[in-house]
Amino acid sequence: MKIGINSGAASGPETTIGGLIERAQKMEAHGFDCFWMASMFGLDAMTALALVGQNTSKIQLGTAVVPSYPRHPLVMAQQAATTNAAASGRFNLGIGLSHKPIIEGMYGMSYEKPARHMREYLSVLGPALHNEKVDYQGEQYGAHGQISVSESESVPLLVAALGDVMLGLAGTMADGTITWMTGLKTLEEHIIPKVRKAAADAGRSEPRIVAGVPTAIVDNKEAAISRIDRGMKMYGQLDSYRAMLDREGAAGPSGVANIGDESDLRKYIQRLRDIGVTDLNCAVLGVGDHDTTVEFLASEL
Amino acid sequence: MKIGINSGAASGPETTIGGLIERAQKMEAHGFDCFWMASMFGLDAMTALALVGQNTSKIQLGTAVVPSYPRHPLVMAQQAATTNAAASGRFNLGIGLSHKPIIEGMYGMSYEKPARHMREYLSVLGPALHNEKVDYQGEQYGAHGQISVSESESVPLLVAALGDVMLGLAGTMADGTITWMTGLKTLEEHIIPKVRKAAADAGRSEPRIVAGVPTAIVDNKEAAISRIDRGMKMYGQLDSYRAMLDREGAAGPSGVANIGDESDLRKYIQRLRDIGVTDLNCAVLGVGDHDTTVEFLASEL
Repeated sequence: MKIGINSGAASGPETTIGGLIERAQKMEAHGFDCFWMASMFGLDAMTALALVGQNTSKIQLGTAVVPSYPRHPLVMAQQAATTNAAASGRFNLGIGLSHKPIIEGMYGMSYEKPARHMREYLSVLGPALHNEKVDYQGEQYGAHGQISVSESESVPLLVAALGDVMLGLAGTMADGTITWMTGLKTLEEHIIPKVRKAAADAGRSEPRIVAGVPTAIVDNKEAAISRIDRGMKMYGQLDSYRAMLDREGAAGPSGVANIGDESDLRKYIQRLRDIGVTDLNCAVLGVGDHDTTVEFLASEL
Repeated sequence: MKIGINSGAASGPETTIGGLIERAQKMEAHGFDCFWMASMFGLDAMTALALVGQNTSKIQLGTAVVPSYPRHPLVMAQQAATTNAAASGRFNLGIGLSHKPIIEGMYGMSYEKPARHMREYLSVLGPALHNEKVDYQGEQYGAHGQISVSESESVPLLVAALGDVMLGLAGTMADGTITWMTGLKTLEEHIIPKVRKAAADAGRSEPRIVAGVPTAIVDNKEAAISRIDRGMKMYGQLDSYRAMLDREGAAGPSGVANIGDESDLRKYIQRLRDIGVTDLNCAVLGVGDHDTTVEFLASEL
């Protein structure tokens, strides 16, 4: 199992380009496999990773995740391919539906028929990421043309999926899935088997399972739990995440976090390996000492 | 009048990131004011300019132009602000409607009501580029939220405008216009007075007039004219450009190109200064020797 570090803080040094590059370089020096960046409302994630790509040499880079709706899939492909070129082929594109309150509330777009939206979106994006000519006409999207970034052969595509339909699309039309707010039980019984089955049925190779996990070494677990559930409250209120927490039997986001002492974290990571997660994306939480957690995670590589 | 160089070749060394950065650095060394990049179907223009921004220090950068339709205006603002941050505040965002055959034919989107589209688009993009909270609901676009890129205070916004309505919007809702396929007569009698009047009526400061001009020092003018009209034939076939050529009384794109010997080019550039163009964006054509033309243009700075 590969281990990576998540970025995309809404405040602090990583909200500047220099600060972000510096953190990515440190994570590369630690030997982490991947540096993932969430899409927030500060730095544009793909542009930021293109800049990181020019200033790193080994570490994989990825978005976790870019919302699909606000960009036409050909433009998404073009930006992703350019980011991949800047990163000498180390870029992984994670995309997702985002959430109804964001797409409708912030972007003023319709979130009706999200499954159809994603199927059509992937019908264009998938081939475009391989520099193939696209000739597609759906209900929501049409695309007829070709993106051609000479330094990007292809970009691995991961689709954020929590429900059955999206899991099917992630296995059938992409290279795997990328999750957030999913615990061990949910990953083992729901996410992994469904994406794998979809990929197998479609004759595709073993899909990637990228699991985003809030992570921290903490002294006082009880205090950490209450801080996490306060600080990450918004995730528990978004429908799709709430459904994953319910499935896990978790009251709040702390129920899907990897927190405790080194031994606790090591066991959790071993379980993730055992159930078939291919990429662990650790969001290192401020409830513990950042460097202590990062150094421990590096020892698990 | 500032003088800049246009990039965005569909083939050759500038289609790679390294090649593009190298050319921008050379143009910076020559002392040019701006390096403009067209939006084609290779490298994503804003991402490419973000990378150029990290590898240059003085030269202004700009898009000429990015099509509005395929990106939600908040996403356009976020990517532009991130590019501006990467360029330490040297980025200029040029956007345009593109053309019906591209928006409908390639992106499968509706090109109906383009003027309304642009008015609504600018209602969101304008404030978002200044990191302002946007709360807008139109027919085609809604946006409620805030983009916040800490290293970008604001991004100058230029709107490609050829017809009266768009010229009005460029003067009223943006910092000026950016043109292509407009000759001296069209600029003097149509573009410049209309953008200026719109800006003045709106109480805005003097608008920027960025004129893209195909440019080359050539020995044999007749041969160059016929090569240009063959090579740039597609521009003469797009409705909005065709209208500008007709207005100029030009049979083809060569009729709005600055070609000839040094004396011819110098006169043309002087006329552009005289009529009030603020930024000349030279697309150096392959019909002449590239370095000869560039060195001459640098002598006009």
